[in-house]
Amino acid sequence: MVATALSTDLYELTMMAGYHAAGLTIPATFELSVRALPPTRSFLVAAGLEQVLEYMETLRFRPGDIDYLRGLPNLQGVRPEFFDEYLPRFRFSGEVWAVPEGTPVFPPEPLLSVTAPLPEAQVVETALMAWIMFQTSVASRAVRIVDAASGRPVIEFGARRAHGVEAGLLAARAAFLAGCDGTSFVEAGRRFGIPLAGTMGHSWVLAFSDEASAFGSYAGVFGERAVLLLDTYDTLTAAKRVTTSGLRPDAVRLDSGDIVSLSRAVREILDAAGLHATRIFATGDLDEWRIAEIVTAGAPVDAFGVGTALSTSSDAPALGGVYKLVEVERAGATTGIMKFSPGKHTLPGRKQVWRVVRGGTAIEDVIALADDAGPSGARPLLTRVLKDGKREVPTPPMHEVRARCRAAVAELPHDVRRLHQPRGYPVQLSDTLKTMIDRLAKRKR
Amino acid sequence: MVATALSTDLYELTMMAGYHAAGLTIPATFELSVRALPPTRSFLVAAGLEQVLEYMETLRFRPGDIDYLRGLPNLQGVRPEFFDEYLPRFRFSGEVWAVPEGTPVFPPEPLLSVTAPLPEAQVVETALMAWIMFQTSVASRAVRIVDAASGRPVIEFGARRAHGVEAGLLAARAAFLAGCDGTSFVEAGRRFGIPLAGTMGHSWVLAFSDEASAFGSYAGVFGERAVLLLDTYDTLTAAKRVTTSGLRPDAVRLDSGDIVSLSRAVREILDAAGLHATRIFATGDLDEWRIAEIVTAGAPVDAFGVGTALSTSSDAPALGGVYKLVEVERAGATTGIMKFSPGKHTLPGRKQVWRVVRGGTAIEDVIALADDAGPSGARPLLTRVLKDGKREVPTPPMHEVRARCRAAVAELPHDVRRLHQPRGYPVQLSDTLKTMIDRLAKRKR
Repeated sequence: MVATALSTDLYELTMMAGYHAAGLTIPATFELSVRALPPTRSFLVAAGLEQVLEYMETLRFRPGDIDYLRGLPNLQGVRPEFFDEYLPRFRFSGEVWAVPEGTPVFPPEPLLSVTAPLPEAQVVETALMAWIMFQTSVASRAVRIVDAASGRPVIEFGARRAHGVEAGLLAARAAFLAGCDGTSFVEAGRRFGIPLAGTMGHSWVLAFSDEASAFGSYAGVFGERAVLLLDTYDTLTAAKRVTTSGLRPDAVRLDSGDIVSLSRAVREILDAAGLHATRIFATGDLDEWRIAEIVTAGAPVDAFGVGTALSTSSDAPALGGVYKLVEVERAGATTGIMKFSPGKHTLPGRKQVWRVVRGGTAIEDVIALADDAGPSGARPLLTRVLKDGKREVPTPPMHEVRARCRAAVAELPHDVRRLHQPRGYPVQLSDTLKTMIDRLAKRKR
Repeated sequence: MVATALSTDLYELTMMAGYHAAGLTIPATFELSVRALPPTRSFLVAAGLEQVLEYMETLRFRPGDIDYLRGLPNLQGVRPEFFDEYLPRFRFSGEVWAVPEGTPVFPPEPLLSVTAPLPEAQVVETALMAWIMFQTSVASRAVRIVDAASGRPVIEFGARRAHGVEAGLLAARAAFLAGCDGTSFVEAGRRFGIPLAGTMGHSWVLAFSDEASAFGSYAGVFGERAVLLLDTYDTLTAAKRVTTSGLRPDAVRLDSGDIVSLSRAVREILDAAGLHATRIFATGDLDEWRIAEIVTAGAPVDAFGVGTALSTSSDAPALGGVYKLVEVERAGATTGIMKFSPGKHTLPGRKQVWRVVRGGTAIEDVIALADDAGPSGARPLLTRVLKDGKREVPTPPMHEVRARCRAAVAELPHDVRRLHQPRGYPVQLSDTLKTMIDRLAKRKR
């Protein structure tokens, strides 16, 4: 990704300069969490950690970055040592604990905690939130869409609707790790090893003087790998044209009209001509609800292409993510930290999340302080992924992350995971955490 | 931006290979337009052209790109000459006409048209749509938000909610060109010369053992430029703390609670202590509707910081943009092209948009064929910006684009521009365009 040291909000840098001036380079812990589920979701799936770890390992202030900052009116008053000594030597030297990518999480559980000298833990906030919250929103939606497709392949097709080309790349990644079968975005194939898929556009059909030549020319190059788009003029006429042309395409694509009735009619036309192996691919503003309808109706659709719903997480384009200071070392002792703004309380202390699983099904989660013993038989979700600013384990390949995600999602209770009227999943606070909250609330200043 | 030649959908490349194989390198025109306004918008403001032109000028297939493509199962069957000769020599050699950034547009007007040999015009689709549609959605929202603020400065604060760091950068750019006064995203300041603004985070206040020390330390560094955040514990207590501390901050920030009543109470506290020059800055899930309420209530808020609403265009996270083939040269003559998919008709022919302005107010737009004479006294919106693959005029500085946008938006009728029950703006089709549509509809095959 293309972050620089300046890919951050100005206030991260003014606070950093202020901490430096005040000598506040004490160890501190920030945690990233989501305040509440969007109304359209019953769980979230963590994603985006990989980009964040790469960024934290390589974050440096280059001479050009420092020159720009030195000239900013907003940073007048900052001591020269900050620019001359602190920034050139800056490294992220701390540690990060995180839930593995692909893990289902529930607000207000921390997805990640960063422990480092205060300025280091502060400055990474902006990029870290942008990458993790976006990929988490896409991965969460992808699980819903893949569930709705009931085993039929789902391909992510949304790069053109994404918020720029980086967003397209990240959306393809998050969708794949959460269970999609491939992407149309070629750079995502190269960068992350995601299988690529594609069809043809309307422009292909329109560029030829007639539809038959368009189909014939495409099949001439791609043979039985060709996917032919049927709706440029009239879907059923186009389907008949396929059968009378002697072509044996891998699939045909329906992109408009009533997919349920069209897919049935097209299947009949194809089967009548012996094209039983030619699959039907549906696209066109699909989401988990449309796909569930098509599947429930028993329509003979073999695969789905999904764009906007995945690449913009259109039902929840932003998650209410927060990255909050939860603990600092003050006078040699760690102190839990809590914010009291109305409606925006935070949970103090460095935490761990425990998932209680019985007979293969997750029963409840417990948010506890990091050094609490967990409930018996429960599994801790956060593991250490960065120590002294370096990754502890190599990046897992995408197909491993994807398999782990499928396994972790399979543990969710069916009634929590379903689209219609899902049950809320229970998340408890440990007794020691509750005690800390009570103590801090009394000390509120 | 970080596009490579592979920042595109697979089907752009399979079609490109197919056009190459079929010898279809005829000149063709594609146009980018939006099908319909989102329900929450009454106009759009074009943005994102700059990134697209830079991309088109520099688009090359590097040896590593070509090696990757050659190995793709999806491209088996493609002739070796495509990889060995066509791709290494590929340049975008065509021309682009576009409405200048900052121009209000109305569906289904083309924002941009690309005329080039068919494969060249095809392959740029994905990145071009992603950049222009996203920035257009942000710029359009920014105009509404700036309008609602009625002259009070609006700062874009949304990088952390954006869909990655590139999206944060593009959102800051689009928001500024559409009238916002600055951004918190430092890289956007450096890259685009946008004024930077920032405050302090809750973490600053929480890192100190008490609020008074936190305020004092910050002001110790930033003096009368400091913006102090009041809601970490209790807003009114914090405001009183400011007045008794002898600090004279530039502003205080309210980030939660009822902004109308809190701003009044804080203003009183500040004024009573003679801090008339200390401004009140409001943030916290603001959008055009919340800001309009605050302004209408006469609350003493001096400036607004807006995040998610701008950086994710949360009410309309995707515009229904399309990039469609509208004309090809066939047997030496240009032919209008039209797609007939249900609900997804396109307008054929290379077009121009004319804006009819009377007494400084835009009355209506007319979509005409490119070589039509426009209505008398009307102004053409599309101008040529790329010829033979090169920019014809240098990039205008951002403050010029911003000034042009304010002037063009000022031409919109008040009742089209207002938030509540806006009137639809009339967009007509020229007679020659209608005639072409009728002719093509009869020939539909």
